[in-house]
Amino acid sequence: MKKVSILKPVLDSNRERAWLNRRFFDRAPSLVVNIIAAPGAGKTSVILALARRLKPLHRILVIEGDIRGTIDRDRIRSSGIDAIQINTKTACHLDAFMIGHILPRIRKRYDLILVENVGNLVCPAEFEIGEDFKLAILSTAEGDDKPLKYPLLFHLARVVVINKRDLLPYVDFNVDRCRRAVRKSNPRAQIFEVSAKTGDGFGPLVKLVQKELRRRRP
Amino acid sequence: MKKVSILKPVLDSNRERAWLNRRFFDRAPSLVVNIIAAPGAGKTSVILALARRLKPLHRILVIEGDIRGTIDRDRIRSSGIDAIQINTKTACHLDAFMIGHILPRIRKRYDLILVENVGNLVCPAEFEIGEDFKLAILSTAEGDDKPLKYPLLFHLARVVVINKRDLLPYVDFNVDRCRRAVRKSNPRAQIFEVSAKTGDGFGPLVKLVQKELRRRRP
Repeated sequence: MKKVSILKPVLDSNRERAWLNRRFFDRAPSLVVNIIAAPGAGKTSVILALARRLKPLHRILVIEGDIRGTIDRDRIRSSGIDAIQINTKTACHLDAFMIGHILPRIRKRYDLILVENVGNLVCPAEFEIGEDFKLAILSTAEGDDKPLKYPLLFHLARVVVINKRDLLPYVDFNVDRCRRAVRKSNPRAQIFEVSAKTGDGFGPLVKLVQKELRRRRP
Repeated sequence: MKKVSILKPVLDSNRERAWLNRRFFDRAPSLVVNIIAAPGAGKTSVILALARRLKPLHRILVIEGDIRGTIDRDRIRSSGIDAIQINTKTACHLDAFMIGHILPRIRKRYDLILVENVGNLVCPAEFEIGEDFKLAILSTAEGDDKPLKYPLLFHLARVVVINKRDLLPYVDFNVDRCRRAVRKSNPRAQIFEVSAKTGDGFGPLVKLVQKELRRRRP
């Protein structure tokens, strides 16, 4: 069987398209956060917790990436937050072309665009979409070794959110060991501990997003 | 940009190789279970719980699929169970060729081969490896809607294991709703509820594996 390497050209053409998306977002300007986590880590809950706190001051759009269905988009919209669904059908990640396809549907000016990627710690990390930064979420139920097993995402994520801290008494998760594992791939990552269920710990994360928003729109 | 569809030929050639793997496993004969779950659902813990219970009667091999590292293989081996590591480097799933490459390293006759796929609910479902059946694991910390969001895996998995039932009092997870969501994609799935942490609920699952073992080696 002749082997053809397709990953590099795919990623190259994705990167070009991401650059075009970036120009669209810069025009607004919108701060775009690419949110990546395993299934069930609490992406939608963290997005809702952030969006509810930032909504009084900022225009917010959520882009929902899912294989199929609109469960999360409906949940976001029912909180009065604008949301657009992308169904990837078979793809395990969002890419810059999928984001590019929905740009014509963004008709208002948004300060903040939160993109919920498909639940997966591998491929979403490889495909830029034109984001300002990647935010990785890890839940305490998943185990503190995940940054060692999925190093690319944790290497690239500027922000790492440890969610479900309310479960800490019931799971074998060592926060310090997790922080060390993240720092191993990414010494400069900013790490936050929250519980999207109780609302605990969101203050510092909201402050970081607001700082980034001010930087994009002085 | 010219579009070339590559998924179908990739899956076709994978299926051919899976068939060759299948012939290798039939010769032993080995029962091969392809274990698929999100990162942190407890794949390694469920495998260990199963393997410890079956070890007195059966020869067991674990094949560990990870992007990088040998954390899980080392954990399996330290329990006295044979294990082989496959590092997929960038790939988000095991395919039949990766399994094919390590077959020459399987020199003993094993009754049961438990394959821990890469933590991911999407692509591992698409790539057959020559298994007898797929076993999907879902943890109660992930939410009961996962079978609706990742329908292909739950459609294909003959066995679905709901793990971390010890966390039920602390998470919003409705077991009945989850069972209904699984049945929607797969009316004949056999569903088990366990806690790999406490060892609770493994009796029926062990019985199922033993029944399958007897079927392969009357």
